Amino acid sequence: MKKIVFDLLNNDNGQCFAIRGAKRFLSENPDYKLILVGNREMIEKEFVDVNQQQYEIFENNDIAKKIESPRDALKANSSMFEAFELLSSQSADGILSSGDSASFIILSSLKIKRLPGISRPAFMPIVPTSKDKNILVLDVGANINVKPEYLLEWAKISVQYYEAIYGKKNPVIGQLNIGTEHYKGNDVAKAAYELIKNDQDKFIFKGFVEPESAINGEVDILVADGYAGNIFLKTLESSFLAFSKMLKGIFLTNFITKMSALLVKKHFKKLKDRFDYRNTGGAFIVGLEKIVVKAHGGSDDLAFYNALNQIKLAIDKNIIEKLKLINEENNE
Amino acid sequence: MKKIVFDLLNNDNGQCFAIRGAKRFLSENPDYKLILVGNREMIEKEFVDVNQQQYEIFENNDIAKKIESPRDALKANSSMFEAFELLSSQSADGILSSGDSASFIILSSLKIKRLPGISRPAFMPIVPTSKDKNILVLDVGANINVKPEYLLEWAKISVQYYEAIYGKKNPVIGQLNIGTEHYKGNDVAKAAYELIKNDQDKFIFKGFVEPESAINGEVDILVADGYAGNIFLKTLESSFLAFSKMLKGIFLTNFITKMSALLVKKHFKKLKDRFDYRNTGGAFIVGLEKIVVKAHGGSDDLAFYNALNQIKLAIDKNIIEKLKLINEENNE
Repeated sequence: MKKIVFDLLNNDNGQCFAIRGAKRFLSENPDYKLILVGNREMIEKEFVDVNQQQYEIFENNDIAKKIESPRDALKANSSMFEAFELLSSQSADGILSSGDSASFIILSSLKIKRLPGISRPAFMPIVPTSKDKNILVLDVGANINVKPEYLLEWAKISVQYYEAIYGKKNPVIGQLNIGTEHYKGNDVAKAAYELIKNDQDKFIFKGFVEPESAINGEVDILVADGYAGNIFLKTLESSFLAFSKMLKGIFLTNFITKMSALLVKKHFKKLKDRFDYRNTGGAFIVGLEKIVVKAHGGSDDLAFYNALNQIKLAIDKNIIEKLKLINEENNE
Repeated sequence: MKKIVFDLLNNDNGQCFAIRGAKRFLSENPDYKLILVGNREMIEKEFVDVNQQQYEIFENNDIAKKIESPRDALKANSSMFEAFELLSSQSADGILSSGDSASFIILSSLKIKRLPGISRPAFMPIVPTSKDKNILVLDVGANINVKPEYLLEWAKISVQYYEAIYGKKNPVIGQLNIGTEHYKGNDVAKAAYELIKNDQDKFIFKGFVEPESAINGEVDILVADGYAGNIFLKTLESSFLAFSKMLKGIFLTNFITKMSALLVKKHFKKLKDRFDYRNTGGAFIVGLEKIVVKAHGGSDDLAFYNALNQIKLAIDKNIIEKLKLINEENNE
């Protein structure tokens, strides 16, 4: 049986949604077992009709707080910390949490072995675009200071995830920069550009791209240092939110505008769904020997259910084994 | 008479719009003289009824091309290059061009003296927000590698521009970062944070802010290194463009949605106008002893007219003299 550790705590809305998402996932995946970290009473109440072979409960009611320094993440009592301990002691294949990103990244880095040949793990969300497709973006904040080789390593890892998720080979990779010209950008970006350009084994390298290319889905994968990647992602998310709010403001102006809103309602629903994080899934932390996913802090049962399926897909497609093989070959 | 050098070439749509914008500006500002660099025949044709004391023409038909290296910007035949020569030989107060940004920044840096106590000039556009206000953002691409003191210098300069443009004292300044916590970000950002925090003389420092705060107008000025600032600005612009296109797509779906569009048309027009670069103006290059403005490459007559007024405002408010005084005092 394949195993996923699920930290039920640390969600903005309590653990009810997480428990319900877990239940739905188990009912559809009899070959999976969930190691649940959370409140035993709440879980058992909801799980009365779930096959007992499919889950194990570890009681924990300590929420991982927002950290002040990396050391805070290592406080052993939090459910997130315990989830990482169980990942190794229970030989599980993947882990899911919706808790504080900074803590989750630090614990992932410290508690899980890196894949051979990988210098640093990266934070990789699935990002919607203005076209009818999603792209992978990495790194978006795990690494503020990077070396050129990190970006090449991340490019190679992301290709495997891309193939597993979308079933398509040879994705187009772009490198986030302040201009498309090869002479633009900082020294690390330019050195990374040369490394990636000379290693287009299983992907097509589009070179430097500006934010526009990613937003319009002209690439499948966007690689970036964690600083620029984070600014890009947060600006994108906040821009869409701001635009949606302004739009809503317009539609709520008066009776006429409310009528107008009714006429386009279902079309907007479709657009809204495309940009709903519950449908795009959680963010992977890649470069480690386990499948690691961070769900959104405001996840509901659908979001958790989808995040568990996202982990399942990665496990079923043997991404980790494939990456181990590739990187071992490269290092020989 | 106050003088502005105006490079009429280098616009995506030819120089007609630039000439018309110049004419309108002169008709309303008898105390201003424009040094026009462009095609004499075209200018004279349009300027038959303009007071000859108010302009001087320097014939030049060489468009500054996109540069491959900084050296390219120094090719002496382009109208942009000649405009910078005239700025000093004619003792003009300001300069306007809509040509290639990279060339314009390099020529500004090389041809104009820096203000006392300023290490590097910065590129500072006026950026609309989701609230009914615009903010100043600097630097957005002139400086990829920065030192902490640059950000403090830019903060101080921007305060003077902010006061001149909006007539408000003590603006709120935020520093762009990947998180609001003081321990987040790279070393330069953290060092700059300390410098700015300890020098809140004529502004209120909000500390580190994420893109969201700037987009929602919670700050008046956003300071950033040119790399992050550029990614922020381009992501913001491209997101709004992408969202507008998706919106247009929805409204054009069928007869019903077109009806809906009609009902909200005038409200959308207002929103669109707020985000129209022609109404927000060009981008300043600050930190130099002249008023320097780069207009949008696709500017029309209204955009050029507004950019000339933007320069006039900065000249009339004596920003350069004020900055010289402040910085000389600081250096004593």
